[in-house]
Amino acid sequence: MAIPLLQLALDNVSLEDALESTRILAPELDVIEAGTVLMTTAGTQALRALRALYPDHIIVSDIKVADAGGLLAKVMIGESGANWMTVICAAPIATFETALAEARKHPKGDIQAELFGNWTFEEAVEWRKIGIKQAIYHRGRDAQAAGQTWGDTDIKKIAKLADMGFEVSVTGGLEISDLKLFKGIPVKAFIAGRTLRDAPDPIAEARGFKEEMHKWWS
Amino acid sequence: MAIPLLQLALDNVSLEDALESTRILAPELDVIEAGTVLMTTAGTQALRALRALYPDHIIVSDIKVADAGGLLAKVMIGESGANWMTVICAAPIATFETALAEARKHPKGDIQAELFGNWTFEEAVEWRKIGIKQAIYHRGRDAQAAGQTWGDTDIKKIAKLADMGFEVSVTGGLEISDLKLFKGIPVKAFIAGRTLRDAPDPIAEARGFKEEMHKWWS
Repeated sequence: MAIPLLQLALDNVSLEDALESTRILAPELDVIEAGTVLMTTAGTQALRALRALYPDHIIVSDIKVADAGGLLAKVMIGESGANWMTVICAAPIATFETALAEARKHPKGDIQAELFGNWTFEEAVEWRKIGIKQAIYHRGRDAQAAGQTWGDTDIKKIAKLADMGFEVSVTGGLEISDLKLFKGIPVKAFIAGRTLRDAPDPIAEARGFKEEMHKWWS
Repeated sequence: MAIPLLQLALDNVSLEDALESTRILAPELDVIEAGTVLMTTAGTQALRALRALYPDHIIVSDIKVADAGGLLAKVMIGESGANWMTVICAAPIATFETALAEARKHPKGDIQAELFGNWTFEEAVEWRKIGIKQAIYHRGRDAQAAGQTWGDTDIKKIAKLADMGFEVSVTGGLEISDLKLFKGIPVKAFIAGRTLRDAPDPIAEARGFKEEMHKWWS
């Protein structure tokens, strides 16, 4: 089973602040994500800066597209340097279809279904049918703050998605000690934001994540 | 019954393009919306430019927030000049709560529940309970392209939301001839994007919208 990728979520309010994080952490990362907060404050400038600085990393535009899938895939992937773009589970199937069709025009271009809020496995079947292969299982920060923790329900859903053929990335207040909960599941990427960025020693924290992944996925 | 407001959705890819539309249309408008596409390309620069140019208009940041409600309300409303910010129906209740608490710190600050994709009236009851009073009923552009039209189901849902105390704005490929479908419902705002922007004579089109509203809501 492949070692999961390590993805940094840049949910900074300013691009400058985000670049301070990537300056330190980029060598430890596989995937750099311009988070929803950063995208709605800095716009595509964030993607263009990240692509210029990190030509070899996978770059994600986490804008949780709800509509205008094709147009936004063209802007984010075709014109601004992102590889992957997220589409929110609440979006109509036409949005997934148009986004995916556009993403596929570009090398390494792909669409990730963002499983946030209400979604059903019936919908997930539809996404697979039209060719969506990536999904992000998301425990939201407001939900975390309200006291939700990782549980058996989460793990079972993630395993079921993997069984359906999804490459599942996992995010939402992940700590190093959480990773073993997902062992046995072919996780695509573990996504961490403030846990990495705000760690006393971000590089040590990132290496801690990777060591733990090697331990359970080697 | 109050005359509905006229809202222009700026779903342009570039801020320059959006400003060309507002230069022409602003005097005819009550509400100017920085759409999701514009927000994810230009970021908060779009809001700051609109606020500087149109100090008396209501400005909406349509970012369809799914998480980090309080932080994004602070950035969009507190710091960038928006009055209203949209929160997607798929967001957890904590996101609505934190966004609303922050929005209320600012004069005219408010949160709009964006009814896009799957949502239930049970959820709508929860939103009302925590004090959300605005909702946007949205027929998506990808759904439109797939052939969905305004129907009785839409009208009945909008009327029910109004009965629940929501101030409902309506959007999604609206034509002037559609407005009468909503007569008898206290619509907060009719939102039009390309129908106005791409009209042969945008001012005449905007005035056509307003005449039709006066006809059915006077």
